[in-house]
Amino acid sequence: MEEVTIKDIARLCGVGVSTVSRAINNHPDINPETRDHILNIIKEYNYIPNNSARNLKRTESKTIAILVKAIDNPFFSSMIRVFEKEIKYERFDFFLQHIDNNQDEIEVAIGLAKEKKLMGIVFLGGFSEHSEEALRQLKVPFVVSTVELDNSVEDCLYSFVSVDDKRESRRLADYLIGLGHRRIALLSAQKDDESIGRLRMEGYKSALSQHGIPIDEDLIVYTPKDCEVYSRRSGYVMMQQLMEREKDFTAVIAISDMVAVGACKAVFENGRRVPEDYSIAGFDGLPETFYYEPSITTIKQPLEEIAESSIKNLFYMIRHEEKAPNKKFEGELLKRESTRKIG
Amino acid sequence: MEEVTIKDIARLCGVGVSTVSRAINNHPDINPETRDHILNIIKEYNYIPNNSARNLKRTESKTIAILVKAIDNPFFSSMIRVFEKEIKYERFDFFLQHIDNNQDEIEVAIGLAKEKKLMGIVFLGGFSEHSEEALRQLKVPFVVSTVELDNSVEDCLYSFVSVDDKRESRRLADYLIGLGHRRIALLSAQKDDESIGRLRMEGYKSALSQHGIPIDEDLIVYTPKDCEVYSRRSGYVMMQQLMEREKDFTAVIAISDMVAVGACKAVFENGRRVPEDYSIAGFDGLPETFYYEPSITTIKQPLEEIAESSIKNLFYMIRHEEKAPNKKFEGELLKRESTRKIG
Repeated sequence: MEEVTIKDIARLCGVGVSTVSRAINNHPDINPETRDHILNIIKEYNYIPNNSARNLKRTESKTIAILVKAIDNPFFSSMIRVFEKEIKYERFDFFLQHIDNNQDEIEVAIGLAKEKKLMGIVFLGGFSEHSEEALRQLKVPFVVSTVELDNSVEDCLYSFVSVDDKRESRRLADYLIGLGHRRIALLSAQKDDESIGRLRMEGYKSALSQHGIPIDEDLIVYTPKDCEVYSRRSGYVMMQQLMEREKDFTAVIAISDMVAVGACKAVFENGRRVPEDYSIAGFDGLPETFYYEPSITTIKQPLEEIAESSIKNLFYMIRHEEKAPNKKFEGELLKRESTRKIG
Repeated sequence: MEEVTIKDIARLCGVGVSTVSRAINNHPDINPETRDHILNIIKEYNYIPNNSARNLKRTESKTIAILVKAIDNPFFSSMIRVFEKEIKYERFDFFLQHIDNNQDEIEVAIGLAKEKKLMGIVFLGGFSEHSEEALRQLKVPFVVSTVELDNSVEDCLYSFVSVDDKRESRRLADYLIGLGHRRIALLSAQKDDESIGRLRMEGYKSALSQHGIPIDEDLIVYTPKDCEVYSRRSGYVMMQQLMEREKDFTAVIAISDMVAVGACKAVFENGRRVPEDYSIAGFDGLPETFYYEPSITTIKQPLEEIAESSIKNLFYMIRHEEKAPNKKFEGELLKRESTRKIG
């Protein structure tokens, strides 16, 4: 007996192929009765809605690509290990490629998907805004890992797994406010950031507003264009700029742990102390912050869980040809020596 | 006209194929007259001794693999970028794979070489001792990057590029001795280390001996089996052990920068200071040591030059089918705040 196709099901149900697809993918835009009817027919005819699984038999390539922005971020190393392990366990091949900050990740991915006949992609690190048109040109399922994004483009199999950057950043600001700080500076991403940087800033602003603390734009410093974003050097440069402004402040939230490390160094070189003169907090939970002197208060991201969930989502999309749900993990506030109670 | 083969040349010269190969590779074990005769015949018949170049036309695969031990060592990230760029520039494909500390890198490489039809391999990071037999089974040219090794196995196309670990380590110890230190401890690799760890220890011992300072085995701490070697945690644990021994010492050489960072943290947690109580120096030149407080004295390895030279050597071996010369680069002693003059 020949294999039943999605076209057969559509014909049997008297609907179009796209409606069958909606039923399979549990799309909200379908009449529930129509959906149930289609799902019954699917069951009856034993149709397996899994083109990818069939593709697997046809092609030799079984490669998953990991595309990493900023490969030298220690943040990603433990995650790459998880991806590698899980991909091998599922007997797929693993392909790692670095993307420069000035490259368009979707363009790179589209080229690579064709060249390597990829089965799926994990984007790790920065992920910019892309048009629906661009996203649709990427014909393989993909997961964006550690970055939250709008997931509403249809006919495009993707999802994201991350922490709730806004909520976690708010939590960190809340903690500093709870320690008595009112004049809290922010060492931010670049001014035009529309990704993690923006979300973390929103969390910071939201915490201040909730406590009736006015936002002082002079206490927000943006990563200069000539600094790599999230780097130690950017933190060092931004903290120097902030101190030169001669504004009052008692605490600093850095957009990442590496930025916090750079900021601490600028404080020391200025002959001041952490936390006696300034409380400084980071974000990410890198091991480096534990070993720094003083140890640095930070939000720890559950990187291995995020990696595991990302790859699980990707395999789900490859096998079921439907979007996997986005997932947001909780971070953990690590209260350490770089922040202190005042007033 | 059919292409001239190495067999044709051997027949024309009245020698064996291996002798022709020796002449091409400028092997010392060949009579100079025979060599000149062979090289003249080669020129006359326009023979191109480059099987790999011809292989390139025959096969679709043009992949170079980078096998990395300890991918989360920030040390390697900048090097991986160089490899990726150079490999792309030469229009080869780039394949990165992580090797666990407990895996045999040659076994992994042999499997991968067949599976991916590799053109060449770069080993980055730890490289253990291997039998000649094992090395000969790896049929593709390879370069060992950042690790010095014995390169005498014949019929096997490989070379290494590194700093002279023994000399650089001696230079660091000399510097501490010049500052007045006599009781200098060493936080070392694992006890059975036969690679970088051993070389750096030899440099340390040689400097002490040259200055008439006896080696005190109680001042040498080895990385415990349950710690990842060269890690911050190993430095932290070893420094705690060293302080518990209650031996006199004024300076510490750590086998790597990350070990130095961990050691500093252990000192601080013990309520002591760097460099007032102990001078501490690292090895590698990671950016982290500049941002640490105090900044850490270290030997900076020219990582990008090592990477460039490694990949150049690999392409040379692929194209010319002869060993490329090993290369040892000079490091740079960065004198910083974590070490001070005493006495």
